[in-house]
Amino acid sequence: MYRTHTCGELKITDVNKEVTLAGWVQTIRKFGSITFIDLRDRYGITQLLFNEKLTEQLDKNPLGREFVLQVSGTVSERSNKNKNIPTGDIEILISEFKVLNKSAVPPFTIQDDTDGGDDIRMKYRFLDLRRNAVKKNIELRYAVNRAARNYLHQHNFIDIETPFLIKSTPEGARDFVVPSRMNAGEFYALPQSPQTFKQLLMVSGYDRYYQIVKCFRDEDLRADRQPEFTQIDCEMAFVEQDDILQMFEGMIKFIFKEVKNIDYAAPVERMTWEDAMWNYGNDKPDIRFEMKIANLKVEGKNYFEGLNKTEFAVFNNAETIVAISVPACSDYSRKQTDELIDWVKRPQIGMGGLAFVKVNTDGSLKSSFDKFFNEQQLKELAQYCKANPGDLILILAGKEERTRKAISELRLYMGGRLGLRKPEEFKLLWVTDFPLFEYDEEGNRWVARHHPFTSPKPEDIAVMINNNPIIENADKYLEHPYSKIKANAYDMVLNGNEIGGGSIRIYQRELQEKMFAALGMSKEESQYKFGFLLGAFEYGAPPHGGIAFGFDRLCAILGGSESIRDFIAFPKNNSGRDVMIDAPSTIDEKQLEELQIKLNLK
Amino acid sequence: MYRTHTCGELKITDVNKEVTLAGWVQTIRKFGSITFIDLRDRYGITQLLFNEKLTEQLDKNPLGREFVLQVSGTVSERSNKNKNIPTGDIEILISEFKVLNKSAVPPFTIQDDTDGGDDIRMKYRFLDLRRNAVKKNIELRYAVNRAARNYLHQHNFIDIETPFLIKSTPEGARDFVVPSRMNAGEFYALPQSPQTFKQLLMVSGYDRYYQIVKCFRDEDLRADRQPEFTQIDCEMAFVEQDDILQMFEGMIKFIFKEVKNIDYAAPVERMTWEDAMWNYGNDKPDIRFEMKIANLKVEGKNYFEGLNKTEFAVFNNAETIVAISVPACSDYSRKQTDELIDWVKRPQIGMGGLAFVKVNTDGSLKSSFDKFFNEQQLKELAQYCKANPGDLILILAGKEERTRKAISELRLYMGGRLGLRKPEEFKLLWVTDFPLFEYDEEGNRWVARHHPFTSPKPEDIAVMINNNPIIENADKYLEHPYSKIKANAYDMVLNGNEIGGGSIRIYQRELQEKMFAALGMSKEESQYKFGFLLGAFEYGAPPHGGIAFGFDRLCAILGGSESIRDFIAFPKNNSGRDVMIDAPSTIDEKQLEELQIKLNLK
Repeated sequence: MYRTHTCGELKITDVNKEVTLAGWVQTIRKFGSITFIDLRDRYGITQLLFNEKLTEQLDKNPLGREFVLQVSGTVSERSNKNKNIPTGDIEILISEFKVLNKSAVPPFTIQDDTDGGDDIRMKYRFLDLRRNAVKKNIELRYAVNRAARNYLHQHNFIDIETPFLIKSTPEGARDFVVPSRMNAGEFYALPQSPQTFKQLLMVSGYDRYYQIVKCFRDEDLRADRQPEFTQIDCEMAFVEQDDILQMFEGMIKFIFKEVKNIDYAAPVERMTWEDAMWNYGNDKPDIRFEMKIANLKVEGKNYFEGLNKTEFAVFNNAETIVAISVPACSDYSRKQTDELIDWVKRPQIGMGGLAFVKVNTDGSLKSSFDKFFNEQQLKELAQYCKANPGDLILILAGKEERTRKAISELRLYMGGRLGLRKPEEFKLLWVTDFPLFEYDEEGNRWVARHHPFTSPKPEDIAVMINNNPIIENADKYLEHPYSKIKANAYDMVLNGNEIGGGSIRIYQRELQEKMFAALGMSKEESQYKFGFLLGAFEYGAPPHGGIAFGFDRLCAILGGSESIRDFIAFPKNNSGRDVMIDAPSTIDEKQLEELQIKLNLK
Repeated sequence: MYRTHTCGELKITDVNKEVTLAGWVQTIRKFGSITFIDLRDRYGITQLLFNEKLTEQLDKNPLGREFVLQVSGTVSERSNKNKNIPTGDIEILISEFKVLNKSAVPPFTIQDDTDGGDDIRMKYRFLDLRRNAVKKNIELRYAVNRAARNYLHQHNFIDIETPFLIKSTPEGARDFVVPSRMNAGEFYALPQSPQTFKQLLMVSGYDRYYQIVKCFRDEDLRADRQPEFTQIDCEMAFVEQDDILQMFEGMIKFIFKEVKNIDYAAPVERMTWEDAMWNYGNDKPDIRFEMKIANLKVEGKNYFEGLNKTEFAVFNNAETIVAISVPACSDYSRKQTDELIDWVKRPQIGMGGLAFVKVNTDGSLKSSFDKFFNEQQLKELAQYCKANPGDLILILAGKEERTRKAISELRLYMGGRLGLRKPEEFKLLWVTDFPLFEYDEEGNRWVARHHPFTSPKPEDIAVMINNNPIIENADKYLEHPYSKIKANAYDMVLNGNEIGGGSIRIYQRELQEKMFAALGMSKEESQYKFGFLLGAFEYGAPPHGGIAFGFDRLCAILGGSESIRDFIAFPKNNSGRDVMIDAPSTIDEKQLEELQIKLNLK
């Protein structure tokens, strides 16, 4: 036993107790002939008082920051109490101490506001993890994990482990593969998700499955992507979409309560994908604030009638014109509106410019295109945009896709500027009725928007079965009946982030075969890759569906952060490297030989 | 909503309720003009009654076993109640039914006593998982998982995920490796255990860590080994061996209580490795029964004095002579003793023969070597072996290692024959004080018996530091001081199976470097492979230790089975293949090109 108590628990009621603590030296303050040391462990910080005699000992063999100490002494009331920490009423009068281990001077300070940059903190991650700021994230992650498990357990879900060494069936993202030594020339793949296995478990009758499980994707890493990531992976049998939405909004609300002590009583809003795109330009809208898009013109069609009467070429030539009414910004200066214009012209946004209308509080209107719109026309426009006095209407015009994306970004940007995206406010949203297919221009073929196991909406099944998937005229793919098919799929959105997504699955062999064919797979290919699933569907597959939550991101958002990396104990950098252990790395020639592979470097 | 209730919950108190159920057809029994169907789901079986009219419908479109049905009807009291199932008091008078999915005739019966062989059940694992016998195993596994998590949570452990894509540092078993595309020519390795990461977490101050986590070993598969397996992986800081033993015998006892409702009140016995080998010939003795080994002669030294007086060449020439006294077998016939002789002569045991002494209940003695031992000599031998009247003393003689192993096997065999290894009796044991090193004849070097991070016993640290690890004379390695060093390591044994093992770790850089050197690693090699850990030890590493439990095996033993495969949802066969999904498999040329590797088949 190295300690009788932790550094976080001693209180005024413990005064006079003989205790032994162990932990790390946080600070050392010499004060005349005595020494104060703050000793830190996972649970807190306790002040130690080294008397004159012990201080003399320390003078001879000085301690340093991060030394590991074991100390014994008497709990004593402090004269100058520290109200900021739970142990702030007491200190320990040290009678004995032992250095359990020394420490070199850390390359950065172990404090909330550390002086260490990203790179050095990644390399010394084991020291970064000591900082309170990081520790809180890791603890929050555990709390979310625990809350999810408890909720799912209460609802009869069963955690069943699915295999990590599976079969490579690349659809979409690349697989990580693992050469097999015992079956030379063959490879396992690491799962991108346990999708097919959880469906098999439904076929097996385990009607409520879950797993908090690592998944793997060999993608070029964008910021905040990790090659290995964690999912809360769930599946249910004998359910329809509504059953799943209710079950899992319940789970997220339970997590809010357990982890953040938030009572999320309001029902979770539901929105179709079409509405989300129309009103927010985005399939994962942040609904903590309104500022919906006004669709003045879409794909050449004037929705705002005032556009029929103008000679403003920019508007007349544009495929799409969209606007947002930003509250309390009608007094923006020229400098401020110029800033916004520069913002939309940045390459990430890529617009040619920005038009605006100031809806002044006195009722007057002032626009950047007064030459082409008179007061009455502006008034009608402001009305169409549902602008209120004091609003600044921002208008973008251009190609449909880019313009819609840009107005969505601008909305988020303005929301952020105005402080409407409060990190401690949480707003959930279900987005439903996604398109089943997306058109892949390069391959002139359909790809599954969610994945190939997603069922079409019941009313669209006939459309799928009765039409040939072949796209005769690539330019007119939007006219193909497949482009109209809706998926029985849903995403859960939290504060503008997709935190989970799922679908009702196909469970009939014929429909699944039709889906594989629609995606351009030959019979042989679908049989080779997914024969086991097609086979399973012949032996009494029940209707089923499920969802997977991005666990890393969920934790990050609950922790009020944008970065998932802060919530992973040992993350990789943007090149997929673990710079602490220096992985990946070369391996022995002998290992390659045993695996019967060799390098083939370009 | 596909159902209002499950097939396991309706009782006599539900009579007259209108209900909807969904599930699988277990059996169909036509009874005159009506039909009984047993409908099965995860929760149980409910009897359905189809009236005359519906039976006519069934006649036109017959159902089959494993069809998926949705049925609605009224709960009704049964006339012939079935006391064997919880729903046996009621049946459902069906008013409506719908076939949700058909089923082909399954390749084996979905029953406890299935007619399917191993291979077919592996191929159709999704059907095998429907069988109650398998479902019970999967449910037990979840119960063990849940109990372990709850216990560890109550004791302040925190679940922290460690990475799966790490660095290859083969020591002992082979790593599975994963070629990196973004860092071509380099490889990740899949973890054989999270050992170094959990130690880093101790350095980071997370003083109680756990994880239930997949680990990977590319070994030639013996029966009941899996390339991927699951550990309950734990580590604690500021602890000594006794703290760990107490904490984790508490965990196993908690699991006994939660999962099997067993109150394991007795303290867990502790035994040194030396005692285990001496008394049981085995480092994981099954202590559900006594039958300890009598060591008559060990490595040439007579412990039983009677051996000094005999002219029995077999005994005189043997290096080691060991015996067990098997109760209530003194009346074994010639045929029975011959059977035992054959048993020890099998190649797996490899002994030349077996001597025996019958200690008859009337006090007389009869041996297989009466020519060499008179009555008095036999009496002394029986006394030395602590034999009781009615015992059959079985004696093996030969080379120390083989003979000790053989007597250990014979003891287990006789224990099994006598019904002393009761599957529902659970007996825990800690084995401690293992040798730190084993001698590797091939390499003429020391290898770590547990792993290179295990600390020597405190009293042996000086022996390790002050002696050169080089073995000058390979024949006399036992005389090298390193062969006497004991490890601060411990195994938990349950009914003769090692279910967990761990150690107090090295936490000082110098000692860890000495250990790597002792194992024949150069400075460069140890720096390349474990530099991050050596580095971490410089920044205030606390004393720490831990343990890992083989989760699959723990579940199997609790489930009363010898085979871990029965407790894994989707196991691999002895060639490391998943025969259901057919993995591993070949991958596309394009994938190989992207990874910049190629096949190099011999």
